[in-house]
Amino acid sequence: MKKKEQKANENEKMPAENMHRFSELAEQFSRYFDTEHFPGSPQSLYEPARYFLGLGGKRVRPVACLMGNELFDDLKPETWPVATAIELFHNFTLIHDDIMDKAPLRRNQETVHQKYGESTALLAGDVMLVTAYDYLNKVTGTVSNQIITLFNRTAKEVCEGQQLDMDFEKSPDVNFDAYLHMINLKTSVLLGASLQLGAMLGGAGERNQNLIYEFGRKLGLAFQVQDDYLDAFGDPQKFGKQTGGDILANKKTFLLIHALETATGEQRAELEALLQTQAANKVHEVLKMFAQCGVDAWAMQLKERYLQGALQHLDDIAVVSKRKEPLRELALFLIQREH
Amino acid sequence: MKKKEQKANENEKMPAENMHRFSELAEQFSRYFDTEHFPGSPQSLYEPARYFLGLGGKRVRPVACLMGNELFDDLKPETWPVATAIELFHNFTLIHDDIMDKAPLRRNQETVHQKYGESTALLAGDVMLVTAYDYLNKVTGTVSNQIITLFNRTAKEVCEGQQLDMDFEKSPDVNFDAYLHMINLKTSVLLGASLQLGAMLGGAGERNQNLIYEFGRKLGLAFQVQDDYLDAFGDPQKFGKQTGGDILANKKTFLLIHALETATGEQRAELEALLQTQAANKVHEVLKMFAQCGVDAWAMQLKERYLQGALQHLDDIAVVSKRKEPLRELALFLIQREH
Repeated sequence: MKKKEQKANENEKMPAENMHRFSELAEQFSRYFDTEHFPGSPQSLYEPARYFLGLGGKRVRPVACLMGNELFDDLKPETWPVATAIELFHNFTLIHDDIMDKAPLRRNQETVHQKYGESTALLAGDVMLVTAYDYLNKVTGTVSNQIITLFNRTAKEVCEGQQLDMDFEKSPDVNFDAYLHMINLKTSVLLGASLQLGAMLGGAGERNQNLIYEFGRKLGLAFQVQDDYLDAFGDPQKFGKQTGGDILANKKTFLLIHALETATGEQRAELEALLQTQAANKVHEVLKMFAQCGVDAWAMQLKERYLQGALQHLDDIAVVSKRKEPLRELALFLIQREH
Repeated sequence: MKKKEQKANENEKMPAENMHRFSELAEQFSRYFDTEHFPGSPQSLYEPARYFLGLGGKRVRPVACLMGNELFDDLKPETWPVATAIELFHNFTLIHDDIMDKAPLRRNQETVHQKYGESTALLAGDVMLVTAYDYLNKVTGTVSNQIITLFNRTAKEVCEGQQLDMDFEKSPDVNFDAYLHMINLKTSVLLGASLQLGAMLGGAGERNQNLIYEFGRKLGLAFQVQDDYLDAFGDPQKFGKQTGGDILANKKTFLLIHALETATGEQRAELEALLQTQAANKVHEVLKMFAQCGVDAWAMQLKERYLQGALQHLDDIAVVSKRKEPLRELALFLIQREH
């Protein structure tokens, strides 16, 4: 009872009517973001940067930033440039990751390095990161220092995650904890930080900021488990792409790592032998091993645990429950999609 | 007379005794800078970044920032982190440039991508840039916004210069103005900006800021002309490396571009034919053509013109003449070295 009272204390006066759902904010952000971020010249540098932003995306992170603000107060004008900085940063990491992964396609279109060469892609990423800081520089007042501190910490963590991911590719033995640590840095902290940056601008206190960060971070983990799961067990019709891609590429995933950790000695030997082959039935056989190790049920439980953890953090935030509806809806939308 | 009075107005009260020469500030900066900029883990990411900073360098730009501050006022505590940000930014560009140029060596040591692989070098550069912004974030108050604005504009210009440099490699016809524009962006604006950032922190007014920027920019151009000159006509004993490297690599330089622009039709044909070859006497023959076109004397004049332009801007700054001595000394040290 005491906890409930405390929760109702903050923001009770704020009417929830002015709040927006993810889809509404996504549309608003898209209109705000689809302007010119770069000068015209030299075209050989800025056209590639523009091209990549033009490939689109769900804009989940910047919209999460807007929602983090709205959880605590009406949208502040400064949240828009911060959300923009987040999306530019995210795109900078994608351009550079694609170079490192030698990926030819992104969103079914040519990657920047594929279309314009590696050097240009490298530089286009660099100027995109600098441009992100242009937008952060629009924040004034004492909060700007905290904003940049969190943004920078997160940016470094994302780079660390990418480095660990590359290290793991060469490492024969990656355990669950190490993989979780890498995924947390590479993909989850940015969602947490996006929400917290919005919350900072919305005037949230430290405790609430930490809770919204943890909500985002765990939601990110749940999303990644789901992504790994769908690549193996998803319905290709609904998933929108052929399944088994991770298996064919011998990519370390939550599933493979758990299978290797829980397999009997015999199963493990069989699985490791399978990884060495490129047999036509490789995906089929690995999936059979996954089933034997109970990986599918385990992954569903793990996803559910992260999701419930995230929702608990959201629950604990000291804000009237009605204001949390859009974020709860976002979580369920991101995670409990059927395919 | 009026101008002189105006000059004496500002900072006359400031005693020049507390000022430092380049060498003194370089030593102080080196002590400040040689600390730990990165966390320990993951070592696979931060060790390469540390390695590159450990290769050293003259630290001209950060020291110029300190000198820009001292021209107008005693050194402010905040100038040190800004100078650090400049040096980290500069090293970030070197790491990424080395990837693009496929350079195996830098300061006679292995480049980062050569030693640790391209992907790690890319990421090490990225975290170094983010770390530069950590240091910029230490500046508080209203000046911080101006600092980041100038820093970002310059960072983008340096990327633009690098892109143009790569574009020019593939372009058969680069005229003097285009080359000058590229060099200005790639190498000169950062020296100008370093000085201006220091001047901002020293409380300089807008006019003085612009003058110190132009002093640095033109000094940078004079330095580049000299660099191109020495690669062709320098004394290898004093220059510290074999001359003719630019010629062997068919690199576009002030010298080659001027030669191609002023040569007779016959000379131009001969020069272009020479560029196609890798004959043993290529350097000797190209130098002969350069001499025929009067390129050496022209380059010396061009360098002198930029240097005099720079010194005139320094002269025009409204500060007592004695305070300008360290910068004048720096200019002559950078440019009029004999080798």
